[in-house]
Amino acid sequence: MPLSISVIGAGRIGRIHARNVAAHASVRLAGVADVDTAAAKALSEACGAPAISVDEAFAADAVLIASPTPTHADYIERATAAGRAIFCEKPIDLAVDRVRACLKAVRDAQVPLMVGFNRRFDEHFAALKRRMDGGEIGELELLTIISRDPAPPPPAYVATSGGLFRDMMIHDLDMARFMLGEEPLAVHAAASCLVDPSIAAAGDVDTAVVTLRTASGKLCQISNSRRATYGYDQRIEAHGSKGLLRAGNVRATTVELATETGFLGDPVLPFFLERYAAAYRAELDAFITAVTGGKAPRPDGGDGLKALLLADAATRSAQTGQAVQPQLAD
Amino acid sequence: MPLSISVIGAGRIGRIHARNVAAHASVRLAGVADVDTAAAKALSEACGAPAISVDEAFAADAVLIASPTPTHADYIERATAAGRAIFCEKPIDLAVDRVRACLKAVRDAQVPLMVGFNRRFDEHFAALKRRMDGGEIGELELLTIISRDPAPPPPAYVATSGGLFRDMMIHDLDMARFMLGEEPLAVHAAASCLVDPSIAAAGDVDTAVVTLRTASGKLCQISNSRRATYGYDQRIEAHGSKGLLRAGNVRATTVELATETGFLGDPVLPFFLERYAAAYRAELDAFITAVTGGKAPRPDGGDGLKALLLADAATRSAQTGQAVQPQLAD
Amino acid sequence: MPLSISVIGAGRIGRIHARNVAAHASVRLAGVADVDTAAAKALSEACGAPAISVDEAFAADAVLIASPTPTHADYIERATAAGRAIFCEKPIDLAVDRVRACLKAVRDAQVPLMVGFNRRFDEHFAALKRRMDGGEIGELELLTIISRDPAPPPPAYVATSGGLFRDMMIHDLDMARFMLGEEPLAVHAAASCLVDPSIAAAGDVDTAVVTLRTASGKLCQISNSRRATYGYDQRIEAHGSKGLLRAGNVRATTVELATETGFLGDPVLPFFLERYAAAYRAELDAFITAVTGGKAPRPDGGDGLKALLLADAATRSAQTGQAVQPQLAD
Amino acid sequence: MPLSISVIGAGRIGRIHARNVAAHASVRLAGVADVDTAAAKALSEACGAPAISVDEAFAADAVLIASPTPTHADYIERATAAGRAIFCEKPIDLAVDRVRACLKAVRDAQVPLMVGFNRRFDEHFAALKRRMDGGEIGELELLTIISRDPAPPPPAYVATSGGLFRDMMIHDLDMARFMLGEEPLAVHAAASCLVDPSIAAAGDVDTAVVTLRTASGKLCQISNSRRATYGYDQRIEAHGSKGLLRAGNVRATTVELATETGFLGDPVLPFFLERYAAAYRAELDAFITAVTGGKAPRPDGGDGLKALLLADAATRSAQTGQAVQPQLAD
Repeated sequence: MPLSISVIGAGRIGRIHARNVAAHASVRLAGVADVDTAAAKALSEACGAPAISVDEAFAADAVLIASPTPTHADYIERATAAGRAIFCEKPIDLAVDRVRACLKAVRDAQVPLMVGFNRRFDEHFAALKRRMDGGEIGELELLTIISRDPAPPPPAYVATSGGLFRDMMIHDLDMARFMLGEEPLAVHAAASCLVDPSIAAAGDVDTAVVTLRTASGKLCQISNSRRATYGYDQRIEAHGSKGLLRAGNVRATTVELATETGFLGDPVLPFFLERYAAAYRAELDAFITAVTGGKAPRPDGGDGLKALLLADAATRSAQTGQAVQPQLAD
Repeated sequence: MPLSISVIGAGRIGRIHARNVAAHASVRLAGVADVDTAAAKALSEACGAPAISVDEAFAADAVLIASPTPTHADYIERATAAGRAIFCEKPIDLAVDRVRACLKAVRDAQVPLMVGFNRRFDEHFAALKRRMDGGEIGELELLTIISRDPAPPPPAYVATSGGLFRDMMIHDLDMARFMLGEEPLAVHAAASCLVDPSIAAAGDVDTAVVTLRTASGKLCQISNSRRATYGYDQRIEAHGSKGLLRAGNVRATTVELATETGFLGDPVLPFFLERYAAAYRAELDAFITAVTGGKAPRPDGGDGLKALLLADAATRSAQTGQAVQPQLAD
Repeated sequence: MPLSISVIGAGRIGRIHARNVAAHASVRLAGVADVDTAAAKALSEACGAPAISVDEAFAADAVLIASPTPTHADYIERATAAGRAIFCEKPIDLAVDRVRACLKAVRDAQVPLMVGFNRRFDEHFAALKRRMDGGEIGELELLTIISRDPAPPPPAYVATSGGLFRDMMIHDLDMARFMLGEEPLAVHAAASCLVDPSIAAAGDVDTAVVTLRTASGKLCQISNSRRATYGYDQRIEAHGSKGLLRAGNVRATTVELATETGFLGDPVLPFFLERYAAAYRAELDAFITAVTGGKAPRPDGGDGLKALLLADAATRSAQTGQAVQPQLAD
Repeated sequence: MPLSISVIGAGRIGRIHARNVAAHASVRLAGVADVDTAAAKALSEACGAPAISVDEAFAADAVLIASPTPTHADYIERATAAGRAIFCEKPIDLAVDRVRACLKAVRDAQVPLMVGFNRRFDEHFAALKRRMDGGEIGELELLTIISRDPAPPPPAYVATSGGLFRDMMIHDLDMARFMLGEEPLAVHAAASCLVDPSIAAAGDVDTAVVTLRTASGKLCQISNSRRATYGYDQRIEAHGSKGLLRAGNVRATTVELATETGFLGDPVLPFFLERYAAAYRAELDAFITAVTGGKAPRPDGGDGLKALLLADAATRSAQTGQAVQPQLAD
């Protein structure tokens, strides 16, 4: 019997996951649930699976939680109570205490929990990591992460997002931990609202830079912006004792036009749906492989918590202008 | 009722097509046939479809012919007699007379026939063509096509392949016609055996260049080799009155390693299965769209014939050292 | 009568300047002075000019100071007393008070003083700045400066260098001011010794990152390392409201080798002598143009002071872990 | 005593050479001669050398001939009679018989003669050649040369130029010989007038492609056009048994602008003055080194003759449509 996976959430990210589950050769999509039952029905049908209720979702072997953030921790706890394997989109919750409580339940019940930091599965970043781990640049010294969204989210989204550091940079903070192989001891952030005044009105920023420093002295610079006219800018550079490994942006085609004004190449892929399409599939596959193989999936709840703690530290640092020591113990 | 498509041929290229048919949302894979019934069975099962006999294949709405070249014309004629829509891998046949006879039957029966020149559907080349047609480089003047296989085929393949011009360059000759928008009036070829002496022993060449000239004076240079240590080299440059459009090679990742020796990027994708994976899907989709919409698919039998006539002309030119005027009337 | 320029200092940087003065079409090299008279003689002869004493150097129309850092302020004051136009290599002095006293004398005497921040004259960075000022990326939001030396300097140099921030990053801090068009209000630095333990033994660092924030909220990230196996890494990215302008590294040739391992391009130019050869000429030309045209040259003493104040702030920040507000009033 | 070099010809190419001679550390510019004495005077003064008569030019140790093509052979013979070392711009003459007669005189007198095929000294192409000779791509199999001028020359120039093959492609034919390391046995050309009808009216073409084949079967494709909106396109690709070496175009800066429309890099350098500035210096230096060292300079008269013979063969091939066997014996 193939593993059955239910998907909760029929929004943008739920659609990605439901389709990937449906197309995966070795699992079965048990159904899609959403409080918006029309959305659940439409997505289910498109995937050749039944629309189910949220209650029914917890009957599948594994539950993939892609609903709005405030529901994540509750759904994790319900799936935990039912003894299901869990894949939850990031973040587990915007409040550290709530995350800790949720993770305690998961630990106590010993159910597998994977958190959706999809970039670890991007083929370019994954190849960089694999080659770095293989020693191609010796010892890592300095990491540079550039991550820019094409355009700011709508004001309503900003208001409940937890702010740029928890909503957007949390991905880069996870990548920093993933790449550094050490926990950051100090976090410094500086941030501004330069793109959209309504973001400042909502108490948030849209342009931000962060510095991390680890125990052994490795350094990491991250920059984020809610604006990039040329597409979804996603780059990593890893400088080590023997050289540099970097992973660049991806473009739709290799076509180049040369005229009097110069050589014009494609913009980079528009946004995460395009850039990370293969990463979402690889991420799901890693979850399935871990669950069916009885291995603990990664990134796990602890990774989710630590990225949130770093995002909290960055938020405080940006507000005070001073560096912050995050406490990353589980 | 969705269109049913049978696939004849369970070899390397048949596997690509059968899987793409099976995965296509709006058609049904009626089954896979092969004189090697074990191969047909294995591929059918992998695609969730029945293994069928060649005779049964002609009962589907459309027949996709991916069997060895010597069988193509016969199968086209049988599918024609059955009134089916036909997709046939290139070439229709290695003999022009046989192709002409086959196409006459197709024309008389007025069945749709598409020939598998997959490169027209490569997203990079298709974008180049679309933008050239959109006027971005003004009037086309000079076309450069570089096409190099990673390694020579086995001697047994070479012996029955019809030679480099009919087997390999035929793709580039089709692309030349596609891009030039005019028929070549003169063909000049020069060729050598530099890669593998067993190819010369089989009477063939492995390194070849061709020049085409059209009625309006447009020029085209094609180069082919059976060797490219760095991957499957597939490039087109179109020089026009207003500028240059070019489509380059595709690499597995954007990762770059910088050390004392310089900056090292990935090799290009290894071969056609990787480079043209999306093109095969787009090609199939174009066939389905044409057939279900009642439109004549392209490239059609005439395109298949003309590419073969150009390949024949190139073969003669390489043998005599003199330019040849191909007669491209249908 | 062409402007006569004397050069004080016959070391590595003095050689660059003396040769550029000698080769400049509209000025005359009055001679080269150095306390090492043999070095002065050798360089003078190579430039077809007399070896002169330091005292004699102040008789030329303009004095180019390329001697060791501790002598800069004294020589500036002597040239000032003699009423000469002055070009001084960075830094004016490692002590802010000494710089301030020196600049007061310059101001009082109203002699022209240009400070040698050569990167402003790099053709790539200058083009980036000119195009940014021309509005191509709208309003600047985020600046990224990457600057890596190929290898650490000898320990003896480190001991008297003033530390990485005053010796190396001072160039990037000047470029940040030049590009930002606003003064940084806050400086945060993090630094490590990862390349060479002898640098830590000398109380210095070899890997450092800095964050700057201006009054209007513009952000700037700088990274420095004393190690880059692939050459002298010098890059700037300017992200603005309308797009990105970036200037990359320069390589000796465009030659690329493609093999099984991938595509290998040249390393970047080895160090500043190669990368900034043209910049040194353009810098000298700007000095000559300003002096002969009666205009105040830039970057001037105030620029030299402000870059030093930023380097001091970065040094303190790296030591304390906390952001520092530099006081950049002249 | 340094070698004295006179320059005959104060036009565009004479200016390059006279300035390079004047700036060269180990030779002396004896003067510039031109039948246009005002031009000779202006250029001489700019180079700090006397204006001299053509007769006086032959009194220098070496004579650099940069006058109009019809004068080359006469001046070579006069310099030969005077026993001078000779550098002559390409071509020696447009008529093969005249070239042969001239070269006989040079051989009989045993004076050194170098012909100005400047591209051999381009740092990018020279590095490619050096690395190919060093075995990086194994045995050369296929060479691709792309060479496009930014815009057609004036009609008056075309009329006396000898035609595209002798005037423009002769450079590429020399590069082909230089790179192939073997003489072409067969030449095929196809050409059109697509850029400027006045070129056809003058009996010439502006777009041309050539195929060369050597005794061992090495192949070479050359393409030329009198139009390239994006700058002076100068590229070479050498495909060998172990891989590919290629040398690309050169751009003024590395600056890139990224916006909604994509990533825009600089056009390539505008024309030969910019692209080959360093090559002209290296070429002169090679001439001086050979002459002062008593070595025969290369490329020599034989290289000049052979390139012309190939150009003649290409011209005939383009007219007849048939391949031509050039007779390259000296």
